[in-house]
Amino acid sequence: CTTRPPSRCMAALKLLGGRVVQVDESSSSVKKGETLEDTVAVMAGYADVVVLRHPEPGAVSRAAQHCRKPLINAGDGVGEHPTQALLDVFTIREEIGTVNGLTITMVGDLKHGRTVHSLARLLTHYNVQLQYVSPAGLGMPLHVVQYVAGKGISQQEYPTLEEVLPDTDVLYMTRIQRERFPSQEEYDKACGQYVVTPQLLTKAKRKMVVMHPLPRVFEISVELDSDPRAAYFRQAECGLYVRMALLAMVLGRA
Amino acid sequence: CTTRPPSRCMAALKLLGGRVVQVDESSSSVKKGETLEDTVAVMAGYADVVVLRHPEPGAVSRAAQHCRKPLINAGDGVGEHPTQALLDVFTIREEIGTVNGLTITMVGDLKHGRTVHSLARLLTHYNVQLQYVSPAGLGMPLHVVQYVAGKGISQQEYPTLEEVLPDTDVLYMTRIQRERFPSQEEYDKACGQYVVTPQLLTKAKRKMVVMHPLPRVFEISVELDSDPRAAYFRQAECGLYVRMALLAMVLGRA
Amino acid sequence: CTTRPPSRCMAALKLLGGRVVQVDESSSSVKKGETLEDTVAVMAGYADVVVLRHPEPGAVSRAAQHCRKPLINAGDGVGEHPTQALLDVFTIREEIGTVNGLTITMVGDLKHGRTVHSLARLLTHYNVQLQYVSPAGLGMPLHVVQYVAGKGISQQEYPTLEEVLPDTDVLYMTRIQRERFPSQEEYDKACGQYVVTPQLLTKAKRKMVVMHPLPRVFEISVELDSDPRAAYFRQAECGLYVRMALLAMVLGRA
Repeated sequence: CTTRPPSRCMAALKLLGGRVVQVDESSSSVKKGETLEDTVAVMAGYADVVVLRHPEPGAVSRAAQHCRKPLINAGDGVGEHPTQALLDVFTIREEIGTVNGLTITMVGDLKHGRTVHSLARLLTHYNVQLQYVSPAGLGMPLHVVQYVAGKGISQQEYPTLEEVLPDTDVLYMTRIQRERFPSQEEYDKACGQYVVTPQLLTKAKRKMVVMHPLPRVFEISVELDSDPRAAYFRQAECGLYVRMALLAMVLGRA
Repeated sequence: CTTRPPSRCMAALKLLGGRVVQVDESSSSVKKGETLEDTVAVMAGYADVVVLRHPEPGAVSRAAQHCRKPLINAGDGVGEHPTQALLDVFTIREEIGTVNGLTITMVGDLKHGRTVHSLARLLTHYNVQLQYVSPAGLGMPLHVVQYVAGKGISQQEYPTLEEVLPDTDVLYMTRIQRERFPSQEEYDKACGQYVVTPQLLTKAKRKMVVMHPLPRVFEISVELDSDPRAAYFRQAECGLYVRMALLAMVLGRA
Repeated sequence: CTTRPPSRCMAALKLLGGRVVQVDESSSSVKKGETLEDTVAVMAGYADVVVLRHPEPGAVSRAAQHCRKPLINAGDGVGEHPTQALLDVFTIREEIGTVNGLTITMVGDLKHGRTVHSLARLLTHYNVQLQYVSPAGLGMPLHVVQYVAGKGISQQEYPTLEEVLPDTDVLYMTRIQRERFPSQEEYDKACGQYVVTPQLLTKAKRKMVVMHPLPRVFEISVELDSDPRAAYFRQAECGLYVRMALLAMVLGRA
C-alpha cells in the first residue's frame, strides 16, 4: 500500500513487516492531473492493500469502485474516519473494561470532526448514552443524529462542559478551529468554555477517561497529562495495534 | 539507493526486499546548495544502487561520472526515460506476443515526451514501422528521427489519428500540455484531434493495444477503460516487474 | 523511530534492518498546532528509539523529558550536533590512526556551526590543539571556548587560513552563509579567504586530512576531490557506520 497515508498508519504496516509505497498529492502524477481513480488503479497493481486518506467527503468510497485490492478508508475530509472509531472503541474497552452502560460526551467542533461522526455511528452497536457539547453552529450534523436516533440510542446536546461532566464516563475532546468562527471574539468565547484542566476534572468521576484523537491544541491543558484519567497518549498507542490488527485481517493473516 | 525516486520505482525495490533512502530536491543538503555530483557521491557511499530522476536533460549521465555504484536513469527531463522504454517493450510482448512486424503509432507531444524518445530508440532493435502523430511544432525531435533512420527503421508523420488508426498495432498515447501552445484556441484544436474514445476504436484492429505511460489527462477517455485493448493499467503493473528485474540484474541477483 | 530524520540517518537504521516512521514539520499533526512534546510522546509509543532534528537550540533536550524511549539528538539548530561529532572523531582515527597529539583547525562560520560546537567539546577528551579561523563576528561562541578552556585544551584564533595551514593535521571546513553578512562586499571578502584549493594545499602537510560535514558550497574546490587528503566523502560514509553503531548500542544490540 498506499495513497496519502498518515505516518501513524504507516507505522502499523511496517511493524507487520509490510512495505509501504507512498503517494501524496504533491507526487508528479497527481500534479500532472491524474485522477484519484487512475492513481488508485495504478497503485492497486503494486500493492496488497490500499490505504487512502483524502480531503473530500465521499472520495474514498468513490475510489473503492476502481480498486481491485482491499481499500481502507483512513479519513475523507469531514466525512468519515472509521479506523479512528475502531481504535476509540478499543481504547474505551482497554481503559474501562466495557462500552455498554457508559455515558460518552463528545466535545468540540462536532460539525467538521470526522472522527466523532464515525465514532457516534460505531457506538450505536452498544448500549450507550451520547452527549454532545459544542459551540453554536458546530453541532453534530443532522445525518449523524438521525442515524444514531434510528438505532434507538439516546442523544442530548449541551452548551457547556460543566453540567455534563459529573455523569460522563468517556470525555471525548476534539479540536476547535479558529477559521470556523466569524470573529476572534466569538472564537475566544467558545474556546474558553471547552478546556479540560485538572481543576475541571475535580467535578468528574474518579473512574472515567479523557480521550482525544490528537493533535490537541489548547483544549486539554498539559497539566492534565499526569492524571491517570488522561488516556489520549495510551489511545494513540492503541491506534497502532488496532491498525495492525485491521491490516492483518484484511490481508488474511489474522 | 536512491536520489529522487518516483514512487513507482520505489515499489519495485521494496518488493525485492531492498531498503530505500530517499533524497529529493527539498532535502536540506540540496537546499543548502549541494551539487548533484556531491549528493550522488555521498549517496553512493550509502547504497548498492542509485536511481536518479532529474529535471535536466543530461544530468543523469553527468552524475554517473561521479557515482562509484551502479546508477539507473529514471528519467532526465525531456531527455531520456530508458526504464520506461524497457517496460513498454515488455508490455507489447506480453500483450501481442511479439514486437517484430508491428506498426507502432506514437501520439501527442513527441517533442517533450522523454518516454517516446527512449522507446523509439529501443524499438530500432526490432523490425517495426513507426508512425508519429503530433500537433504542429511538437513533432519527434530531429536527433531521434536521425538515430532511428540510421538504423534503417521506417518512420512516417501524420497530422491526425484517424488515418493511421486502421493499420496500428500499438497506439502509444502521451500527454499534451497546455503550456506548449501559444493560445488556448490552438491548444483546444490540437487536443480535440488526439482523444481516444470507444467510438474511435471502432476503426481500429480488433487485436491491437492502447498504451500510455500515465498519468493520462484527457487523451484517453475513461469510457475506454473496460475495452480489452486498453492496456495502460496492465502496462503500469508490468513496469513494476520490469523495474524489479532491472534492479535484480544490476545488483547481480538475477 | 523517528521525528524529522535526515535521510543520512535513516539509511543507518534501515541497514540495521530497522523500520522508520518519519514525521516532519509539514505533517498534518504539526501543522494543526501539535507541540513537539506531544509529537514525541505519540511517536515514542510507536518506536524503539526516537531520532530528533529540530531548528531550535535546546529543543531536543526539552523533548527528551517527554520521551519514554531513547532519544537521539540529530542536531538542534545552532545548538549541538553530537552524532556528527562522533563520526568526525571516528573519521580522524580512521584517516590518521589517532586523535592525540593533533592540531585541528576549524574554519568558517564557527558561531552558527553546531557541528564545530559539538566537535570542540568532544575533542576535549583527547590531547589536541584547537585552532579557529573565521570571519570577524563569526568566531566560536564564548560558552564553547570556556568549556574547552576549562578542560585545559589550548585554543587559538586566526584571521586567515594561510598562517595555520602548515601546522594543521585536520582541516575542518564548514559553510559560510551569505545571510550572516551585512553586505555582499563583506561576504565576498570573507569567502575569498576561506577556500581550500589544490594550490593552497601545497602549503599543507603531506599527511593531513580535509574534512567537511557536507554539504559544501564553494569552500572546498571540486578540483580537490581527487587529492588523497580530501577525506570528506569518506567521512560521510563513516557517518553511516557510526550512526549504525550508535543505534545498535542504544537499542542494546551491540
